[in-house]
Amino acid sequence: MDALVQHLERLLSQRVELHLKDHRTLAGRLAGLDEHMNIVLEETEERTEAATRRLGRVVLRGSNMISLTAPGAPGRSP
Amino acid sequence: MDALVQHLERLLSQRVELHLKDHRTLAGRLAGLDEHMNIVLEETEERTEAATRRLGRVVLRGSNMISLTAPGAPGRSP
Amino acid sequence: MDALVQHLERLLSQRVELHLKDHRTLAGRLAGLDEHMNIVLEETEERTEAATRRLGRVVLRGSNMISLTAPGAPGRSP
Amino acid sequence: MDALVQHLERLLSQRVELHLKDHRTLAGRLAGLDEHMNIVLEETEERTEAATRRLGRVVLRGSNMISLTAPGAPGRSP
Amino acid sequence: MDALVQHLERLLSQRVELHLKDHRTLAGRLAGLDEHMNIVLEETEERTEAATRRLGRVVLRGSNMISLTAPGAPGRSP
Amino acid sequence: MDALVQHLERLLSQRVELHLKDHRTLAGRLAGLDEHMNIVLEETEERTEAATRRLGRVVLRGSNMISLTAPGAPGRSP
Amino acid sequence: MDALVQHLERLLSQRVELHLKDHRTLAGRLAGLDEHMNIVLEETEERTEAATRRLGRVVLRGSNMISLTAPGAPGRSP
Repeated sequence: MDALVQHLERLLSQRVELHLKDHRTLAGRLAGLDEHMNIVLEETEERTEAATRRLGRVVLRGSNMISLTAPGAPGRSP
Repeated sequence: MDALVQHLERLLSQRVELHLKDHRTLAGRLAGLDEHMNIVLEETEERTEAATRRLGRVVLRGSNMISLTAPGAPGRSP
Repeated sequence: MDALVQHLERLLSQRVELHLKDHRTLAGRLAGLDEHMNIVLEETEERTEAATRRLGRVVLRGSNMISLTAPGAPGRSP
Repeated sequence: MDALVQHLERLLSQRVELHLKDHRTLAGRLAGLDEHMNIVLEETEERTEAATRRLGRVVLRGSNMISLTAPGAPGRSP
Repeated sequence: MDALVQHLERLLSQRVELHLKDHRTLAGRLAGLDEHMNIVLEETEERTEAATRRLGRVVLRGSNMISLTAPGAPGRSP
Repeated sequence: MDALVQHLERLLSQRVELHLKDHRTLAGRLAGLDEHMNIVLEETEERTEAATRRLGRVVLRGSNMISLTAPGAPGRSP
Repeated sequence: MDALVQHLERLLSQRVELHLKDHRTLAGRLAGLDEHMNIVLEETEERTEAATRRLGRVVLRGSNMISLTAPGAPGRSP
């Protein structure tokens, strides 16, 4: 079951988007994460329907996250 | 109680569908998962009633998932 | 406290019904489970008030389950 | 802190009642349990305000339970 | 951090009151507990606004409890 | 990551205030706590908008707590 | 997966802001934290829409937190 950890470590230092339960999106460089999905982002931008603002370094408690997408990752398409 | 882990590992690299609490479906290739049902999908498509869009690689926090189905798996029928 | 594990393992490969918090019932052959009540069913049928449909192999995240019944198990009656 | 485990094991094979968050009561013979309060009952009867029905063997996920009472246990009265 | 365990063990066999999320109070002799605040009471009385009734031995799942008070314990007053 | 434990142990035997999710405040002497934020208070006073009353020794299940403040602690001000 | 711990330890003694589920912000010096995101702040200021007040040392239970931002941290901008 190490497959998950290996995939997550491969995402470190990449730009990712976090989709939160409160409908915000956080976009930034993935600097750290653990199996609770606690996450550290750097160069973070918070995006809501109303506005975008710079937040610097952000630690997100995993329980507030729905999913993380890595748009730049080489997702092979069929 | 290793029966669960063995079944899950057999699903790795297969195409699966995740049914989420927020009524979205994510369809993709299962690239990783753990016992919290944290999941990594590749070549992911998000399907809602309104639309379908490509998401690339997605890490889903397990607490947002209801179930995972593997339609292509050989489910013996009575 | 191993009594629980032994009882659960005895149910493996039997036909069971899962009663979910969202009022669905999943009926199938129990292929795997763990102490979080994460469950793998094979030959699964989903039953709602409206309809029944075949799902093949299903992995259910335990937090969505209320209870599992094994109708065919020899429940001694008083 | 082993006091809890010892008390629970003493209840094995006794008839108990489980009081659930969804207002149902399950009555049966306690066949197994663990520290998450996951529980196996045999010869189970489900009692709601509307009806009583036989369920055979039931595995209840602990998070759905409020409390377990053992009416037949020798509770010394003051 | 063993301070908590030592305090709890000192309460064993004392009469305590449990205050539950569903607004009931359970009063009885503390027979067992663990770090999840799963609790075994003996000679239990359930008290609601409407009535009081005897329950014998009760196992409470900790997640349903807010707090436990030990009125008879020697709480030094300032 | 031992920094948290050391800080909490330094608060033992000090007077603290607990702010609960149900809008009550418990004030007392901190007698024990663990990493789940399960807490033992002595000489406890419960304060609501309506009234204040003495509770003696109280064990609070951590999941009901928002935060703990130690007004008497030497919080250096800028 | 130690990346998270290392990032968090680097924030110790820095000024941070905690964003809570109840819409309050706590600003203070980070004195301790653990993997549950339980946090100790010193020199804490609580900020709501209505007012700001000094709280001294605060221990926050992690489950009440959404995120932690470290405005002063060197977040490299693209």
